[in-house]
Amino acid sequence: MHINKIKHTNAGQFFLMAGPCAIEGRDIALRIAERIVTITDKFQIPYIFKGSYRKANRTKLNSFTGIGDIPALEILREVGETFDIPTVTDIHESEEAELAAPYVDVLQIPAFLCRQTELIEAAARTGRAVNIKKGQFLSGESMAFAVEKVKATNPESTVILTDRGNSFGYGDLVVDYRNIPAMQAHGAPVVMDCTHSLQQPNQSSGVTGGKPALIATIAKAAIAVGADGLFIETHPVPAEAKSDGANMLPLDQLEGLLEKLVRIRESIR
Amino acid sequence: MHINKIKHTNAGQFFLMAGPCAIEGRDIALRIAERIVTITDKFQIPYIFKGSYRKANRTKLNSFTGIGDIPALEILREVGETFDIPTVTDIHESEEAELAAPYVDVLQIPAFLCRQTELIEAAARTGRAVNIKKGQFLSGESMAFAVEKVKATNPESTVILTDRGNSFGYGDLVVDYRNIPAMQAHGAPVVMDCTHSLQQPNQSSGVTGGKPALIATIAKAAIAVGADGLFIETHPVPAEAKSDGANMLPLDQLEGLLEKLVRIRESIR
Amino acid sequence: MHINKIKHTNAGQFFLMAGPCAIEGRDIALRIAERIVTITDKFQIPYIFKGSYRKANRTKLNSFTGIGDIPALEILREVGETFDIPTVTDIHESEEAELAAPYVDVLQIPAFLCRQTELIEAAARTGRAVNIKKGQFLSGESMAFAVEKVKATNPESTVILTDRGNSFGYGDLVVDYRNIPAMQAHGAPVVMDCTHSLQQPNQSSGVTGGKPALIATIAKAAIAVGADGLFIETHPVPAEAKSDGANMLPLDQLEGLLEKLVRIRESIR
Amino acid sequence: MHINKIKHTNAGQFFLMAGPCAIEGRDIALRIAERIVTITDKFQIPYIFKGSYRKANRTKLNSFTGIGDIPALEILREVGETFDIPTVTDIHESEEAELAAPYVDVLQIPAFLCRQTELIEAAARTGRAVNIKKGQFLSGESMAFAVEKVKATNPESTVILTDRGNSFGYGDLVVDYRNIPAMQAHGAPVVMDCTHSLQQPNQSSGVTGGKPALIATIAKAAIAVGADGLFIETHPVPAEAKSDGANMLPLDQLEGLLEKLVRIRESIR
Repeated sequence: MHINKIKHTNAGQFFLMAGPCAIEGRDIALRIAERIVTITDKFQIPYIFKGSYRKANRTKLNSFTGIGDIPALEILREVGETFDIPTVTDIHESEEAELAAPYVDVLQIPAFLCRQTELIEAAARTGRAVNIKKGQFLSGESMAFAVEKVKATNPESTVILTDRGNSFGYGDLVVDYRNIPAMQAHGAPVVMDCTHSLQQPNQSSGVTGGKPALIATIAKAAIAVGADGLFIETHPVPAEAKSDGANMLPLDQLEGLLEKLVRIRESIR
Repeated sequence: MHINKIKHTNAGQFFLMAGPCAIEGRDIALRIAERIVTITDKFQIPYIFKGSYRKANRTKLNSFTGIGDIPALEILREVGETFDIPTVTDIHESEEAELAAPYVDVLQIPAFLCRQTELIEAAARTGRAVNIKKGQFLSGESMAFAVEKVKATNPESTVILTDRGNSFGYGDLVVDYRNIPAMQAHGAPVVMDCTHSLQQPNQSSGVTGGKPALIATIAKAAIAVGADGLFIETHPVPAEAKSDGANMLPLDQLEGLLEKLVRIRESIR
Repeated sequence: MHINKIKHTNAGQFFLMAGPCAIEGRDIALRIAERIVTITDKFQIPYIFKGSYRKANRTKLNSFTGIGDIPALEILREVGETFDIPTVTDIHESEEAELAAPYVDVLQIPAFLCRQTELIEAAARTGRAVNIKKGQFLSGESMAFAVEKVKATNPESTVILTDRGNSFGYGDLVVDYRNIPAMQAHGAPVVMDCTHSLQQPNQSSGVTGGKPALIATIAKAAIAVGADGLFIETHPVPAEAKSDGANMLPLDQLEGLLEKLVRIRESIR
Repeated sequence: MHINKIKHTNAGQFFLMAGPCAIEGRDIALRIAERIVTITDKFQIPYIFKGSYRKANRTKLNSFTGIGDIPALEILREVGETFDIPTVTDIHESEEAELAAPYVDVLQIPAFLCRQTELIEAAARTGRAVNIKKGQFLSGESMAFAVEKVKATNPESTVILTDRGNSFGYGDLVVDYRNIPAMQAHGAPVVMDCTHSLQQPNQSSGVTGGKPALIATIAKAAIAVGADGLFIETHPVPAEAKSDGANMLPLDQLEGLLEKLVRIRESIR
């Protein structure tokens, strides 16, 4: 896995994609990044800062969608330069690939869009690493075709695959850990998204709910079965976050959680 | 429901969106349209010709994706003008809305993309009717938010909602007929997609399979519970179709099927 | 299908299994039966009176389980003799087959128990018709083995198969109408249970909820796709029923519902 | 958790229920038990020998159902006495509780039967520990009612709850690890059944298939999230086993698997 600026890759730990759901402002982004860098340096965890520059697939029309594309992307660049760490944002349409690529190191394809060939190709053409979330309606085996789309466009690309759970009735998702080895078989590192796999979709309010108390359960199982990375959205005060607050881990709980996960990781080596 | 050129709207029948999966060529498109117009005139069924000008969300990279955007769109226009009927194509990214709108009467949002706000807004801005397919991961109730996105952009828009089944494990879809009244409650006519709701996704070949023998079962139940329209992909020789052949109804079976459905429709009036 | 005392079998209509969930008392049972006999005679619908003599698979310990086995069975017999109609009850353990058989014409195997070989064999040995509910975890195809168990025990047996929906996440069931033709392929008449397929299991109260407003939706789709029979629990005042009140059809709505269904049935002949 | 003869309960390890699916004969049962006792003594894992004395819920009529009740139960007793370890068998009808209790230390309620009140009460009355498998159609939360049924019958009973996956479409099961803490909240130790949660039901052959290569994946995740015990069916030559061979762990792989799991367990203490 080649990703610009990534640290601690020889320490044998899982890597971490973490940050706020959306880029809400410069100060909060830098503050979150600083805290996570300190923690991940301590545990020698390779770290990628995550923040969406725009939210395009909200259920409701009046949900928060961002602070403006370029301002948000510039914050991502500043976070990456300030802490010398890679950053990731998601994109939703092909033209966003070229827009976002100069500012970040990893482009992420949202789960609903993981079958959109043009979007994946556009991301791959930028030369950035591409993190594709497995659709809630797809098996791990089927993600072979998504990997193939990236590799056919750009054989040098780093492809990461992320699981964020499967549809389980209308109002729930379930994580199927069989998908971790199934997706690793495609030759890509596999990430468990501990935030979105706890969503409870189709709630009548139009705001997707969740059960953040189970983040540790989702993460521990993933590390035990050999996941290569974790994706965790975190915020100093989730209740005040402008997007997806229901599922984010309070930032002050991150260190304690990672400490436990590091120990599980060591036990399986 | 206002759609340009649509006929037989006072006959009390369900309407039909039908045609080949993708626009493969001028002659085959005209031939299919001619046959369906004859049949639907006989039964006084309002008819919308369906054909995708481009296929962007294929599982596999080397699947058929189209004959070229403008040539395919011009065939759609010719079909509409030749038979004086409305036509529909799906679009996958926002910029396609303006591209396709001058050629067709209805723009369709694919199921995987039904949460993409910008795409829905772009479709609504064209003034065309918008047919939104319910995601395989969404409840009928949740489609209220999709309708709202169209109406907020263009209060005059006609919105149609289409059910194409729900994820049921990895390899199967199941149609939940409770979604028909649930989506009608949003004030939109509701269509049952009898083709894609029979797909069997996540097959190891990367080509989505199906069980076309059950098309009649899916359609009869839909009409009985009051669906406003049906979506049926059909082809003179499905085995020779370049896209989704596994699920298309042989064109010569369409008349017999519609005859049965017309009778069920009459029984529930 | 041979069932003692069953009427109107040449009228071409679907048959009906209907009555209260549990036998609560003599007067209420006779009153419900009388009303349904009047309605089904009017529509020439073959009718089987349904009432459980004992409820053994309640979620909660303190749920209503019955008025006593023999008193309840004697009420079933009296209903059958008074109106000269067949009756059905469910049984839960093998020894109940011999206990209940002298009082009723059909023995019903609950969905959770449809894989219990000894129970099915015990029912078949009585010579009564056997109605096996498809487990919420089983496909229609798999019910071939249940039919085979009855036939191997008693080749003369009448076997009926009933669909009551499939698990769809924890809190919901979905009816898959593909199971109707799939089970008819086993050579058995197929019934749609319009009551239990609307249950919403795993509710925190321990009492299974439901959405009775959708009974007509479930029933119409079943008749349209060719179901041979319907199963509907009904009660003069569902809110006062001692068991499963949440899903029962108010008795005064039965005639109106059947009238619509009879028309759909006629449209598919 | 009080279970007769159980060892190593203070070692801080998970406990193990393991053995062949069915009791096929005396020699093979003793041979399997001896091997597992050696391994579990080495790792200080509390061990319960598992073997069904009768198989009553086979899909197909001609599946293996046992060697005879009393001969099988006497083998269970001999295994327990020979190695001074507790044993467990499942029961399917109430009268089997009294039949089996004198021979074993734990009575197990199969998943399909976890809602059968009389069966649970009959098991509880024997004073044996009761292991209730969570139905494939039930949430972990709902198992509160099963625990309550045991405790109301016999407040002194030890109750164990076992997860064996949830229905995920017709042909697959998925393990939802959120159910481990959810069931522990009922005050019962929770076991992960690593064998049956890998079943692939509803196969057309009538023999339930599986994917035994994933046993380690299922088990590792369970231990990492804090499962109290594991259930693993094992056989020297699974392909020759008379029941459920498709999912059993080859006995010679058990030690290697447990060694890895013991290390994960230690990492979470």
